[in-house]
Amino acid sequence: MNKEVTVVKIGGNVVDNPVALADFLSDFAKLPGLKILVHGGGKEATRLSSTLGIETRMIDGRRVTDGDTLDVVTMVYAGLVNKRIVSKLQAIGCNAIGLSGADAGVIRSVRRPALPVDYGFVGDIDPSGVDGNFICNLLDQGLVPVFCAITHSTDGQLLNSNADTVASSVACAVSSLANVRLVYCFEKPGVLAVANDDTSVIPSITPDIFEALTSAGTVSGGMLPKITNALRAVGSGVGEVIIKSAANLLSPNSGTVITSC
Amino acid sequence: MNKEVTVVKIGGNVVDNPVALADFLSDFAKLPGLKILVHGGGKEATRLSSTLGIETRMIDGRRVTDGDTLDVVTMVYAGLVNKRIVSKLQAIGCNAIGLSGADAGVIRSVRRPALPVDYGFVGDIDPSGVDGNFICNLLDQGLVPVFCAITHSTDGQLLNSNADTVASSVACAVSSLANVRLVYCFEKPGVLAVANDDTSVIPSITPDIFEALTSAGTVSGGMLPKITNALRAVGSGVGEVIIKSAANLLSPNSGTVITSC
Repeated sequence: MNKEVTVVKIGGNVVDNPVALADFLSDFAKLPGLKILVHGGGKEATRLSSTLGIETRMIDGRRVTDGDTLDVVTMVYAGLVNKRIVSKLQAIGCNAIGLSGADAGVIRSVRRPALPVDYGFVGDIDPSGVDGNFICNLLDQGLVPVFCAITHSTDGQLLNSNADTVASSVACAVSSLANVRLVYCFEKPGVLAVANDDTSVIPSITPDIFEALTSAGTVSGGMLPKITNALRAVGSGVGEVIIKSAANLLSPNSGTVITSC
Repeated sequence: MNKEVTVVKIGGNVVDNPVALADFLSDFAKLPGLKILVHGGGKEATRLSSTLGIETRMIDGRRVTDGDTLDVVTMVYAGLVNKRIVSKLQAIGCNAIGLSGADAGVIRSVRRPALPVDYGFVGDIDPSGVDGNFICNLLDQGLVPVFCAITHSTDGQLLNSNADTVASSVACAVSSLANVRLVYCFEKPGVLAVANDDTSVIPSITPDIFEALTSAGTVSGGMLPKITNALRAVGSGVGEVIIKSAANLLSPNSGTVITSC
C-alpha cells in the first residue's frame, strides 16, 4: 500500500468564479502524485433554477430536490460544471475523466427516507457503495477522476448527493487500497477560532479537540457537518483531512489538519 | 483481431420519448458482445433553449452554437441525457460509463472555421482524433461506453459535434483494433425507395448504388449526410453500417446494410 492519493474537494465559491477556478485548476494539475477531484456547483444550479422559474428550497443547507430540480442539478453538476473542469484540466496536461456516481456504477447511494423531512431525490452515500477498485484502476492508468455529486440507486434513479460526503466516501473507499489524504478547499484559510479573523486558523483537530471546540461554541453552523465528515473519514482509514483555502492548495503547513488522534 | 464490437447511435426521437427509450435500452442491453452507444438529444436541447429564451438557429440541419447554446447542449447532452441513459442501463445490468469527448481526452475535435458559415462552437471530428485504445481498454474491462456528442479542442474548449459523426469516428477508430459494426437507429425501418412507404426499404447500399440512388433523386435531404457518413466509415475499416429503426435493434435482416462493395 505505498500508493499515495490526494482527494480534493472544491465548492461552489471556486466553481462559480472563472478566475479562481482557473487558478485552482492550475494548482491542482501541479499537485504531485495520484489525485481525484470532487466538485460542487450549487450556485450555478440555483441560478439556472431561478431562470427556469423553479423554486430553490434549502433545509439545513441541503437542497430539496424535486423532479425538476434533479434535472437542473444533473445538467449543471454532471454536464456544465464537470465537463468545463475536465476540458480545462485536459488543456493543461492533466488527463481528467469526469464521472457521476452512475458511471460504471461507481457511487451507489440510497434515497433518503421521506421522514422526518422529505428532501426528494437526495441520495445518502455509504463508503461501501463506492467502487474503490474501479477508481484505483483509473488512477493506475494515469487518469484523474473528476466527480460531481450526482449518484444513483441500483434501480436506475439518479440522486443528488452532498459533495463533501462524495469526497469523504471516495476517500474512505480508496483508503483500503492506498494512503489517502483528503483536502476540503473552501473560501477561508482553515477552521477559525474567531469567526472573522483569518489569522486564527486552528492548526489541528482531533475528536477530543472537536468535542471541546463544539462545547465551547467555537465551531458551529456549516463547519460542523464538514468536520463531522472529516472525522468520520479519518476514523475509517483516511490518513488525514485538511480544511484550507482553495488558493493555498499547494502551500504546505496551511489550513486545519484533522486526524484521528 | 477477433474482437467484435457494435457501435449503436440513437437520435433525438428515441431519446425524447421515455417509453421508446426504455424499450430501446432494454434491447441494447441484450445485444450480445462488446458494444458502444452514441446518443443525440437535440429536441431536449431545443426545448431548454426555448425555455431560457435562447434562440435556436439551424443551418442545413446543424445547430448554430453560440456561447449560451454551448452551455445548453453541454448540460443536456453530457448531463441530463447521458446520465439518464447510464443510470437506466446500470439498473438493467449493463455496466455503462458515460463520456463526453473531453473525458480522458477521448474525442478531440477542431473548431469549424467561421467561413463560409459561422456555426460558433461546433467541432469537426476526424477519426485520428479519437483514442481507440482507451475505448477498447474500457470494453476489455466489461464497460459499455455511452458517448454524447460534446467534444473538445486541445486548448480546453468544449465543442458541439454531430452525433452521427461521433458514432462513425468512434467506429473507425475502434476498427483498427476490432471488427466493428455500426448501427444508426432512427424512426424509419431503413433507407426507403419511396419516401412514405415503410415497406420499400432498400436492403443494401454500396458506393455505386448510392451514386445511382442520388442521381435518380431517390435519396435526398437528411438521409444524404447519414449515408455519406456511413460510406466513409465502411471505407475506413468499419465492416458494415446498418440503418434501421430503433424498434428493430435486435431483429436480424432488418434495415439497410451499407458496405464498401
